[in-house]
Amino acid sequence: MKPGMSLMKHYLQFKDFRAEEYAYVFERARVIKQRFKNYEKYRPLTDRTLAMIFEKASTRTRVSFEAGMYQMGGSVVHLTTGDSQLGRAEPIEDSARVISRMVDIVMIRTFEQTKLERFAAHSRVPVINGLTNEFHPCQILADLFTYLEHRAPINARGYDLDCLKGKVVAWVGDGNNMANTWLQAAEILGFTVHVSTPSGYGVDPAVAGISRTDCYKVFKDPVEACRGAHLVTTDVWTSMGYEAENEARIKAFADWCVDAEMMGVAQPDALFMHCLPAHRGEEVSADVIDGPQSVVWDEAENRMHVQKALMEYLLLGRIG
Amino acid sequence: MKPGMSLMKHYLQFKDFRAEEYAYVFERARVIKQRFKNYEKYRPLTDRTLAMIFEKASTRTRVSFEAGMYQMGGSVVHLTTGDSQLGRAEPIEDSARVISRMVDIVMIRTFEQTKLERFAAHSRVPVINGLTNEFHPCQILADLFTYLEHRAPINARGYDLDCLKGKVVAWVGDGNNMANTWLQAAEILGFTVHVSTPSGYGVDPAVAGISRTDCYKVFKDPVEACRGAHLVTTDVWTSMGYEAENEARIKAFADWCVDAEMMGVAQPDALFMHCLPAHRGEEVSADVIDGPQSVVWDEAENRMHVQKALMEYLLLGRIG
Amino acid sequence: MKPGMSLMKHYLQFKDFRAEEYAYVFERARVIKQRFKNYEKYRPLTDRTLAMIFEKASTRTRVSFEAGMYQMGGSVVHLTTGDSQLGRAEPIEDSARVISRMVDIVMIRTFEQTKLERFAAHSRVPVINGLTNEFHPCQILADLFTYLEHRAPINARGYDLDCLKGKVVAWVGDGNNMANTWLQAAEILGFTVHVSTPSGYGVDPAVAGISRTDCYKVFKDPVEACRGAHLVTTDVWTSMGYEAENEARIKAFADWCVDAEMMGVAQPDALFMHCLPAHRGEEVSADVIDGPQSVVWDEAENRMHVQKALMEYLLLGRIG
Repeated sequence: MKPGMSLMKHYLQFKDFRAEEYAYVFERARVIKQRFKNYEKYRPLTDRTLAMIFEKASTRTRVSFEAGMYQMGGSVVHLTTGDSQLGRAEPIEDSARVISRMVDIVMIRTFEQTKLERFAAHSRVPVINGLTNEFHPCQILADLFTYLEHRAPINARGYDLDCLKGKVVAWVGDGNNMANTWLQAAEILGFTVHVSTPSGYGVDPAVAGISRTDCYKVFKDPVEACRGAHLVTTDVWTSMGYEAENEARIKAFADWCVDAEMMGVAQPDALFMHCLPAHRGEEVSADVIDGPQSVVWDEAENRMHVQKALMEYLLLGRIG
Repeated sequence: MKPGMSLMKHYLQFKDFRAEEYAYVFERARVIKQRFKNYEKYRPLTDRTLAMIFEKASTRTRVSFEAGMYQMGGSVVHLTTGDSQLGRAEPIEDSARVISRMVDIVMIRTFEQTKLERFAAHSRVPVINGLTNEFHPCQILADLFTYLEHRAPINARGYDLDCLKGKVVAWVGDGNNMANTWLQAAEILGFTVHVSTPSGYGVDPAVAGISRTDCYKVFKDPVEACRGAHLVTTDVWTSMGYEAENEARIKAFADWCVDAEMMGVAQPDALFMHCLPAHRGEEVSADVIDGPQSVVWDEAENRMHVQKALMEYLLLGRIG
Repeated sequence: MKPGMSLMKHYLQFKDFRAEEYAYVFERARVIKQRFKNYEKYRPLTDRTLAMIFEKASTRTRVSFEAGMYQMGGSVVHLTTGDSQLGRAEPIEDSARVISRMVDIVMIRTFEQTKLERFAAHSRVPVINGLTNEFHPCQILADLFTYLEHRAPINARGYDLDCLKGKVVAWVGDGNNMANTWLQAAEILGFTVHVSTPSGYGVDPAVAGISRTDCYKVFKDPVEACRGAHLVTTDVWTSMGYEAENEARIKAFADWCVDAEMMGVAQPDALFMHCLPAHRGEEVSADVIDGPQSVVWDEAENRMHVQKALMEYLLLGRIG
């Protein structure tokens, strides 16, 4: 850690940051993105190295973190666990001790959240959740930034997060790590999530780790969940690791395809998001994802910019 | 794209560039190589990131692009598609949209040329062919540069490409992606290719995509193809992806080994090239590839230097 | 090679350097580590590229070399040989010729030492042993540096290597590449290794390549080997590549667990080292590796710092 930082922070789930920290990170993301687009050199992470540990395959997370770190002047070591899972060749605690002696920050994509937590508990450097079974905070960070970019007024301190208060995000489909993370975000930032999942695939507020129940509302009918929503979002029906259930899921999720009808009952200026890859005709119709309300490509690009801001904050604290 | 570039270019096949563009790229390659050899710092691609996507294994292409990008000050994200081919987890078009939002230039080694073209059509950034079933333009770029380096006079604008006019390149062996690319190069730069392949392994001018037939001549006898040639070149009998045909090919190609007899009928100062890896005793005899006319190690190194010039041109346009 | 270096050096086994070269490298490692800890920018290897070739999996060697190279301002190309071993697609000699045309320094982790030697013999650039069946010099470099850091007086030229003279290192366990390398180090730097291995797993001085027999002493009883030792060290019972022997080894090595009894007969201020990963309850007890005499985490981190000094020395020669 840089001298001067009083306390090392990890980013293991969305609720690890308070609302004002998000306001700071989003403003930094905005500035960093603007500089990047203008080809202004900005390399605050020169001489810093990010280790990325992947226990599941990834393209988006890989490219966004790796290119993002390079753009900030830093370097990346990309580790995959291959056949041997993290914690098999040696205890996770030992891997954490060794790797965190050699690099400045670590991103982990793994299975159980507890694995990530055990690593973080023995790491000397900040650890970032790059997706677990339970949470995907970096994606929600990108989604919220994309929403703000398209819809929020800017004041002297950046995007006005108060604009999120009272807004409705419709989550249509699987009650997975994305859904859990949306719930945490709603609790911290003051919006409401309308969740509609097939029976048996619902969100579990205990897993999501939220303390209030007024930040989300469950709908049986996905169309009703979308009614009046400011943002409609979904994910593939079968996330990585659940391939064996694919056939059963295709049947169960048949009515949870975000289509023109659902977008039609949402706010007229509602945005559509998807963390990608998308399966057109399954969880989303082609006319929606390729239509004018879809901001999925901005959303994908913004992964990179928010993660640059996140790494800057974790490594250097507040700047200026 | 850097502001000021009027039109984004890809490099998908050799005929994507005109002769004067090759003159420019070869001159830049000469200057860039010289600076590198003199340990002069030259980092025009600082803050630029190259994504390399490999659907087939590679050492030479990998190291030459990756080290080359680093030498220019840039960064590299190295992606392999593993079991899942490009276009399986998501449509190629979506991969192109996402990846080209995060990096500045993309190199792809894949199977069908059409895959490369679909990616390029949806990419916001330049795309380079790092080998397809049909073409291997970066290799011919290196081969021509190596020829010029050894044989061309230098004038005020660099190597005099007119020296290529009327020259003869003998292609001995498989009518593959290398042969196709040689034909395109001959058409653009004004030399002639003498092609000799076993029956059934010939070049198809339709696949090669050339419009004139006077840029190549077919020979049944490989020795006759080499007669008077200024450059003799070949490739392995069984390229990647054709391993199942290996036994049949070994029989069919038995007479297409570049040996002292073939080099003996070529020009006395003819050069020998091979894109490597080489199988001594199959497509080339040890005394030829390890002999005084062979420039295969220069040729391998020059992959790196011409690709640096290529990336500089695609990203920054003409300098000065 | 940089102009001005009279002779290119490789680092293939510990005895490739003389004692005064080690004194120099250890002093550079100390300075480089200190600068790194102080966040001082020091990038002497800018524009230099390291190729790492792994034929066996690795985390520690991978991260330490890769992060180390980045910290020195350089770049890294990480190659794994996958199914095809080095020397299968093309002769090792050709790989060496090609790769060493494109990068500035090469690190290889492979099986037979002779493979490494064949590569080095045809390389234009320095080659480093990143572990072979026979030797692991980079690890012993780190171990000695860690010992010096904890125990050596500093004089005007850095750590006083004379303090190693007469010291005793106890090697408990497998007579493997680590043991062989300790023997070479003892011969060069003037200490003694007490070796205790199960019967059938002993060190072979011919393989170790030492010319004197007074630099090591063989003990049947591991406790006796530890008596009076200044450093007690061990390794896993079953190194990579010997997994088939695992069951037999677990039986044979049962009495070769470094525990409190062994540490109790060593010097009161003896250090414990382990190149990791460690199997608590097999080759070392938890109370030893997690106890106050253990310096295993410093040892792991120091891999990175000594290797930075090593690469600096091989690429730039003596500085100042």
